[in-house]
Amino acid sequence: MDVRFRDAVRGDLPAIVAMLADDPLGAARESSQDPLASHYVRAFEAIERDPNQRLVVGEDAQGANAVCQITLVPGLSRNGATRALLESIRVAGRCRGQGVGERLLRHAMDVARASGAGIAQLTSDRSRGDAHRFYQRLGFEPSHVGFKMQL
Amino acid sequence: MDVRFRDAVRGDLPAIVAMLADDPLGAARESSQDPLASHYVRAFEAIERDPNQRLVVGEDAQGANAVCQITLVPGLSRNGATRALLESIRVAGRCRGQGVGERLLRHAMDVARASGAGIAQLTSDRSRGDAHRFYQRLGFEPSHVGFKMQL
Repeated sequence: MDVRFRDAVRGDLPAIVAMLADDPLGAARESSQDPLASHYVRAFEAIERDPNQRLVVGEDAQGANAVCQITLVPGLSRNGATRALLESIRVAGRCRGQGVGERLLRHAMDVARASGAGIAQLTSDRSRGDAHRFYQRLGFEPSHVGFKMQL
Repeated sequence: MDVRFRDAVRGDLPAIVAMLADDPLGAARESSQDPLASHYVRAFEAIERDPNQRLVVGEDAQGANAVCQITLVPGLSRNGATRALLESIRVAGRCRGQGVGERLLRHAMDVARASGAGIAQLTSDRSRGDAHRFYQRLGFEPSHVGFKMQL
């Protein structure tokens, strides 16, 4: 499959939100109507303004087909290691099962390494068994419990 | 116990690194010699420079006795919610079992809310059973698997 990976631009936002919503968990918590809800535009602008954020997409002839947000987190633990937090990892339904997710993650890890990160981390809902096997196949260790709380 | 919570300053760094090292997992991966390794100073400066980082400490008459790093992560998922990632949560050995950790976390969540975060998240090594019970008691849900990979 012919996919190019690059930083997201404003015009990718509808395709990105559609990917977030086209998901068993995302369907219940995202709003992908047209025109796009303004909170997504504000969030995109906040990501763009922050030099420690990289929002990367995969792209084919039909537009953005995969997405991953990388947050660089400077920190003291682990001898002052910078972490790369990966969030919002999705592949469009039309492209699943074709290796796009693996290439997306490898691209994201290259971006993280090039930015000086020493460790990559992500959390995945307990219900996403297929995703867990995917991350382990790429070398991620399920070493931690991920806790969340609404504020 | 009389503890005050505030943002960390450069002078807290030796006490913070000592807390990171005084831990079953941290002992093997931190270097708390005096003078402090320069990578910790560089990491502290990177945290200070980044407006989306807050490094908070608890303090008593003997100095910093608790630490927590809060990273604000703007994001598209969950209707453009800002996340507060909590890392490097520690209480000094001399203060454990006295409610300092709970007050630290409640302070961190207040900081996160005041900064516009809609969700707080953290990961905890699978071996830290006591910590897991502590986080659940505060209202965190162990809803996710936490994956990590060295880069």
